[in-house]
Amino acid sequence: MSSFVDRLNAAAARNRSLVCVGLDPWRPSMPIADIAAFNRAIIEATADLVCAYKPNYAFYEAEGIDGLRALAETIEAVPHGIPVILDAKRGDIGSTATAYAKAAFEVWNADAVTLNPYMGGDTLDPFLAYADRGSLILTRTSNPGGRDFEELPVGEGTPLYEHVTRRAVEWNGKGNVGLVVGATAPDELRRIRAIAGDMPILIPGIGTQGGDLEAAVRYGMNAKGLGAVINSSRGIIYASKGADFAEAARAAATKLRDEINEVRARLGFRWPS
Amino acid sequence: MSSFVDRLNAAAARNRSLVCVGLDPWRPSMPIADIAAFNRAIIEATADLVCAYKPNYAFYEAEGIDGLRALAETIEAVPHGIPVILDAKRGDIGSTATAYAKAAFEVWNADAVTLNPYMGGDTLDPFLAYADRGSLILTRTSNPGGRDFEELPVGEGTPLYEHVTRRAVEWNGKGNVGLVVGATAPDELRRIRAIAGDMPILIPGIGTQGGDLEAAVRYGMNAKGLGAVINSSRGIIYASKGADFAEAARAAATKLRDEINEVRARLGFRWPS
Repeated sequence: MSSFVDRLNAAAARNRSLVCVGLDPWRPSMPIADIAAFNRAIIEATADLVCAYKPNYAFYEAEGIDGLRALAETIEAVPHGIPVILDAKRGDIGSTATAYAKAAFEVWNADAVTLNPYMGGDTLDPFLAYADRGSLILTRTSNPGGRDFEELPVGEGTPLYEHVTRRAVEWNGKGNVGLVVGATAPDELRRIRAIAGDMPILIPGIGTQGGDLEAAVRYGMNAKGLGAVINSSRGIIYASKGADFAEAARAAATKLRDEINEVRARLGFRWPS
Repeated sequence: MSSFVDRLNAAAARNRSLVCVGLDPWRPSMPIADIAAFNRAIIEATADLVCAYKPNYAFYEAEGIDGLRALAETIEAVPHGIPVILDAKRGDIGSTATAYAKAAFEVWNADAVTLNPYMGGDTLDPFLAYADRGSLILTRTSNPGGRDFEELPVGEGTPLYEHVTRRAVEWNGKGNVGLVVGATAPDELRRIRAIAGDMPILIPGIGTQGGDLEAAVRYGMNAKGLGAVINSSRGIIYASKGADFAEAARAAATKLRDEINEVRARLGFRWPS
């Protein structure tokens, strides 16, 4: 099986897109009641516009067993060739991490999963053992509380997130490690990309959270103009609360893809034709 | 509704026990195939010996929808008056944390949940909003990788876990915050208890992981001889792989309870008769 990075880059090139659509079903915002049907409509309307989909586990778990069944149906509905990033922010000790890795990659069959590094390297190992899947490690997140601990100066004064990034590079022996960096922290994104080499970086936080799209593209991409996975959830899937929600999602995803490609073109990157 | 701490202390006093049994179903170790039936047998055999039960989410998620259904059945099987700590190590940004909190406290109906502090205070707020439920924050965990980041010196040289502990004390306005500290780090446990006041501390890591039971009791308890929630999973639930697994679990839980009470008595604490 190909690597997560290969599948991600192939989808990006095929769809000429660095857009990741976040599939976060939240009842008060949903135009229809059926989670799986809602997601299927969004996926059908955007599958030629994205490089990845990112369901966030929390929104499915909050709906209980039925919600988790809808998560399985959602992942099955993603067309072959478009990677699914399960945003679950897992992290636990050895045997438990083995169970979480089994869940992410074998139960849900995700192409990549987001991971919390707080508990240290051995908590990530069981995920990294899946060479064909991506392990995306939180560094500087998009929320205000990202300053509480992630930016604390450690050791000789480098912020914790940078320390985590350096360790993530060490853990990348199989080429299956990536990072998560919020678009609300553009300076930090720039510093992280400088350390991370070509690694994929999942970048949430544009749109509702107010992150800087230009900076997300400029600092998020690697030297090949790839590797930035720019996520939008609410801005796309709830673009309309009416019966036209899928068309509105398509329009919003197209707009975001084009805005990204404009910045990308200004920086000298064009998709192969 | 009473607070998590009140329910925990009441169960501890009633059963004269600081033992928490970890309900971690792992097929290769299980003497019978049905997860919910296995857990029900363990719970029936130990319910008068414990102050809490702790199912770890990962082991249920690894079994897919059926496993998660077994999680719900397991939590329902715990007798009224014994708190359930859902060990899920959640942590995500605001709206997502709201969904995780709903899942932990309303879908699974846990009395407390374990939380990962890496992403900062705002990621914990939606959990803390549930005044009658416990939010147990990871500080120094029991695994070797606990040294990777948790022990890094931050700011003026205090280790990160200590910084997290001080913030957790600030977040305890509703009296519903607790901590998680591994028994494999007794010095750190002592320092954390000195900062944490009376807060409950969940202490995994004795038994298979080799943590120091005497230190877990001595440094884990608060000034009232309570507040240490000493977890054993494999040492109790897999005490026998035979048909006598429930009796063996009861014997192992009794032994652990008595060993803890012996240390407790040496330190001058007796249960009310």
